[in-house]
Amino acid sequence: MHKVIYDTDPGVDDAMALLFLHRHPEIDVMGITTVFGNASVETTTRNALFLKREWDIQAPVAKGASVTIDAARAEREWPAMVHGDNGLGNIEVPHTIDLPLDPRPAHRFIIDTVRANPGEVRLVAVGRMTNLAMALKEDPEIAGLVKDVVIMGGNFYVPGNVSPVAEANIHGDPEAADIVTTAPWKVVVIGLDVTSITTMSRSYLGVMAAKGDAAVKLLDGLSQHYIDFYSHAVDDGMMVHDSCAAVYLVAPELFTTITGAVRVVCGGIADGQTVIKPDGRRFPPGDWDGLPSQIVATGIESEKVIDLIRDTLLRA
Amino acid sequence: MHKVIYDTDPGVDDAMALLFLHRHPEIDVMGITTVFGNASVETTTRNALFLKREWDIQAPVAKGASVTIDAARAEREWPAMVHGDNGLGNIEVPHTIDLPLDPRPAHRFIIDTVRANPGEVRLVAVGRMTNLAMALKEDPEIAGLVKDVVIMGGNFYVPGNVSPVAEANIHGDPEAADIVTTAPWKVVVIGLDVTSITTMSRSYLGVMAAKGDAAVKLLDGLSQHYIDFYSHAVDDGMMVHDSCAAVYLVAPELFTTITGAVRVVCGGIADGQTVIKPDGRRFPPGDWDGLPSQIVATGIESEKVIDLIRDTLLRA
Repeated sequence: MHKVIYDTDPGVDDAMALLFLHRHPEIDVMGITTVFGNASVETTTRNALFLKREWDIQAPVAKGASVTIDAARAEREWPAMVHGDNGLGNIEVPHTIDLPLDPRPAHRFIIDTVRANPGEVRLVAVGRMTNLAMALKEDPEIAGLVKDVVIMGGNFYVPGNVSPVAEANIHGDPEAADIVTTAPWKVVVIGLDVTSITTMSRSYLGVMAAKGDAAVKLLDGLSQHYIDFYSHAVDDGMMVHDSCAAVYLVAPELFTTITGAVRVVCGGIADGQTVIKPDGRRFPPGDWDGLPSQIVATGIESEKVIDLIRDTLLRA
Repeated sequence: MHKVIYDTDPGVDDAMALLFLHRHPEIDVMGITTVFGNASVETTTRNALFLKREWDIQAPVAKGASVTIDAARAEREWPAMVHGDNGLGNIEVPHTIDLPLDPRPAHRFIIDTVRANPGEVRLVAVGRMTNLAMALKEDPEIAGLVKDVVIMGGNFYVPGNVSPVAEANIHGDPEAADIVTTAPWKVVVIGLDVTSITTMSRSYLGVMAAKGDAAVKLLDGLSQHYIDFYSHAVDDGMMVHDSCAAVYLVAPELFTTITGAVRVVCGGIADGQTVIKPDGRRFPPGDWDGLPSQIVATGIESEKVIDLIRDTLLRA
C-alpha cells in the first residue's frame, strides 16, 4: 500500500484526484492537507471536508497555509473563472461542514505523519507548495524520511498557463516551490508538459457518471464549470492536471521522464518558472550546481492515464 | 538582391556565415559591424578585417560595442575554449590587418545605411545585440525603416547553452536583446531550437575544403578547434549557429516558425532567457502585452540547410 498525504486546494481537478486516491486499492490516504490557491484556504478546507463527507473518506483534514511563504508577496485574486467562486464549479456546497478538522496545521500534520512512518510516506502536492516548504523549514530532517514527493506544477518545454513561462501552482508561491525542488528528497514533477495534453471530454465524464455511483455523479456535476472554462484551450473537455500526479503514484510506467536539478525563478518577468538542468548537460558553473537530481515528466500515455482514472473511479 | 548588414563577433561559426553571405548570389553585404562576444571587440574586429582581406570582401567593417549596454553588468571571460584565444580557432592570424576601418562606430554605420536605403536593409545579427540596441536608442525611427532583423540567439523549447535557460548571444547582453526583440520592427529569432540540431561533420567540411578554393580551405582550418570543443555535445562536427540565420535570409521555407511577443529575462537565475508569448495563447495581463509579434524558428530542415551552405560556399 502506498501511504499518501494529499496536499491540495480543491479545486475541481483536485476533487477528481482525491476520488482517484480514495478509490485506488493500493493507496492509503493518511491525510488531506489544504492550502490556499484555487480559492482561499477557508474555502479549500471547507471543500475538502465536503468531499470527505460526501465520499466517506476516513482520512483527517488538516488546514494549511493561507498566504505565500514570503509574506512580502502581494495577494492575487482567486481564479474563480477556472474553479468557480466556491472552488467547486459553483455547485451547491454548504457554507460549513460539520466535521472536525485535525487540530494541527497542515505542515505539522505532515511532519508528524512522516516521522511516524519513516521512509514510507509519499507526499502528493497539487496546489501551491507552501505547506511542504513550511514543513521543511520547521523540520528539515523530514527530507530524509519521506519516500518521495510527487507534485503537480511547473512546465519545462511547453508554455505556462498563467504567464508564458509559469504554471499556476508554482507561480502562486515560487519561493516555496524552490525550497521544495531543491531539498534533499526525491521530487517528481508532473507539469504542463504532460498534464496539458491529458484531457477528459465532457461526454467521457458523462458516460462515467451514468455508470458510476453518487460520488462520480457529484464529480461530474462539479466539473461542468471547469470544462466550460477550458473551452478556450481544449476542444472538448478538461485537463486533468492533479489526477496525473495521483496516477504517477501507481503507474509511473505511463510517464517518460528526465532527471536533473530543478530551480524555480523568483521575481522578474519569468517569476514562477520551473527550470531543469538536465543531468549530463554541460554548463558553466551556475545556480543549479550541487543540487539534488529530481525527476521531471516530459511524456505521458494520456489515453491510458484517462482510462486508469475511469476504471479506478468506477470501483465502488 | 538582399541588402544585408552583418553584425558579428567572429568567431568560427560567424566566419562560415560571412562566407555564405559573401558568396550567395542574391545577397549584397553592405557592411560588417563588429561586437564583443566570442572575443574582445578588438579581436573580433581584427578577425573581420582578416576575413575581409583573405576572402576579398568589398564591404566596409565598422567597429562596434566593447561592453554591454548596461555598463553595470560585470564583464565575463571570453569563451576561448569555444572559439580559441584569437576567436578563430587559434589559426595563425596577423596581429593587425592593414585595412582601413569605417570611421563610424557600428551603430552609427547601421543608422546611416538604413536611412540611405529605407525599407531595404536586412540586419543579420549573430553576436550580442548591443550594436542594434544602441542604434535603436540613438535613432528609434530606424525601426520603421529596416526590412527585417534576423538574429541568431535564444532558445525557447530546448535548453540553453550557457545556462539551463540561456543562450550565449542573448545572455551576453540581455538588456540589449530585450530592446531589440520588443522594438517595432520585424525580428526573426533563429535560436538553439533549430541551430543546435543543425550540425556539419568534420568530414563533410573536409570534403568541401578539398573541392573548394583557398577561402573554404581557410574556413576548414579555423573550424577544427571549434569542432573539437563540440565533441561534448555533437557526435562529429559543429553546430553552424550563425549560418542558420544567414540561410534564413534566402531560404525561409526551410524553417518552421511560430509568432508572438518576445521578451528577454534580465537578472535572476533565468538571466538572458528568451521567452515568447505565442500569438493566440491566452494569459492574464502581463509583461508581454502590447508588444509587436515577432517570428521564432522552432523547426528546421537541417540537411537541406547544410547542403545549401555547402553549395553556396563552393561557388567561387
